[in-house]
Amino acid sequence: MLISSKDNEIVKEIKKLKEKKFRKEKYLVEGLKMLKEAINENQDIELIILKDGINLDFDVSNYKVITVTENLFNTLSDVVTPQGVLAVIKKKVCEKINDADFLVALDGLQDPGNLGTIIRTLDSANINQIIVSKNTVDCYSPKVIRSTMGAIYRVNVIETDSLKDTLINLNKNGYEVLITALDGKKSIYDIDYNKKVIVIGNEANGVSDEIKNLDFTKIKIPMLGKTESLNASVATGIIIYEYVRQKIK
Amino acid sequence: MLISSKDNEIVKEIKKLKEKKFRKEKYLVEGLKMLKEAINENQDIELIILKDGINLDFDVSNYKVITVTENLFNTLSDVVTPQGVLAVIKKKVCEKINDADFLVALDGLQDPGNLGTIIRTLDSANINQIIVSKNTVDCYSPKVIRSTMGAIYRVNVIETDSLKDTLINLNKNGYEVLITALDGKKSIYDIDYNKKVIVIGNEANGVSDEIKNLDFTKIKIPMLGKTESLNASVATGIIIYEYVRQKIK
Repeated sequence: MLISSKDNEIVKEIKKLKEKKFRKEKYLVEGLKMLKEAINENQDIELIILKDGINLDFDVSNYKVITVTENLFNTLSDVVTPQGVLAVIKKKVCEKINDADFLVALDGLQDPGNLGTIIRTLDSANINQIIVSKNTVDCYSPKVIRSTMGAIYRVNVIETDSLKDTLINLNKNGYEVLITALDGKKSIYDIDYNKKVIVIGNEANGVSDEIKNLDFTKIKIPMLGKTESLNASVATGIIIYEYVRQKIK
Repeated sequence: MLISSKDNEIVKEIKKLKEKKFRKEKYLVEGLKMLKEAINENQDIELIILKDGINLDFDVSNYKVITVTENLFNTLSDVVTPQGVLAVIKKKVCEKINDADFLVALDGLQDPGNLGTIIRTLDSANINQIIVSKNTVDCYSPKVIRSTMGAIYRVNVIETDSLKDTLINLNKNGYEVLITALDGKKSIYDIDYNKKVIVIGNEANGVSDEIKNLDFTKIKIPMLGKTESLNASVATGIIIYEYVRQKIK
């Protein structure tokens, strides 16, 4: 059956997922690669939405699939030139931080592209969790999901009501908390990355005062030129790969 | 005098700068920070364009300034919420590669945000030039300029008609050319960054076959997880900062 009406109940439910407040339990992913990866990674796929006329070169007969008209599909899509494939995925509920060598916590990061890129970089380093403060951009927004290139399926997002309490608790449990700051005294290259939590702040303002005022070490990436700050996802990538470098050497 | 007509000759000239083909000699920058940096960095500022009602907290009396109506300004701006400041800057002509420890060459990079971020990262490492192939996205597009956060004023862009010839020449002149490739054999951590040119490819396809087939070493960032590739600006940042790490240690 081809759905063409914007008043269709299923379509209305899908459209709601464009807003954060309706993404408590599930979220929308878009594109062939994202759907393929969702299947490969055994995600809980609630529904696949295809644009009329789209043929997939892989099997989706195990899933619930609906087909909608091109016009209707375009109202659901988040991109300028849609591939004609969307899926509704159930979130994995994960509130517990697993024991690890290396953790990244985000304190108010705002750019969806940066967040998605950080999740992608973490996954490339086999770090499968990320801690985010309440005021960090939503990990399940379409642009974040896109920028993860599928890594969202493998990285658990742990949202914390109080990043401060979470960091204090991690510290009690044997982690050293390291706060990135442009005026940090310790270089990221002078750290042994073992049982560390790295805190990354907001693009414009850095780590919040509440967190910065905690009695934890401030670290910085040593810079040689006139540009005084790096893009947040690049800075995070540089620190994650310093961890990787030490791990493999 | 307040300009309100879209048919004003100056306004028409400014608007042309939105298209690459008219940016041979000059380009447009937007926002307070970009204008301030242009002044600080002694750029050749041909014209400053202010939205009616905008007051600057710094002196621009040495420059040619025009004021335009809000509606007209919005047609010139490239952003959703303009600050009301634009400037026309003359390009610095630079065709010669200066002798350096470390060079980055881009082979068909397409995302303006990635390019701007790479220029910003280079500047932070005090690397003041970048080599770009003809088919790399235009360094002077508004989105690239924005992402450089002002670093564009300090990094010379050297566009080459034949990246292949440029790399072969650099090699003859004592540089080792290192090509990033997902199937590279040598780790970026097993390299002594002295007289090196790093080639970064297109986001989707990597370095072009023409360049990859040259007899130069292929290098890769060792990855530990399932994500097999990094965002291009993150990957470039990781390599640039491995150079920095070695330089300062």
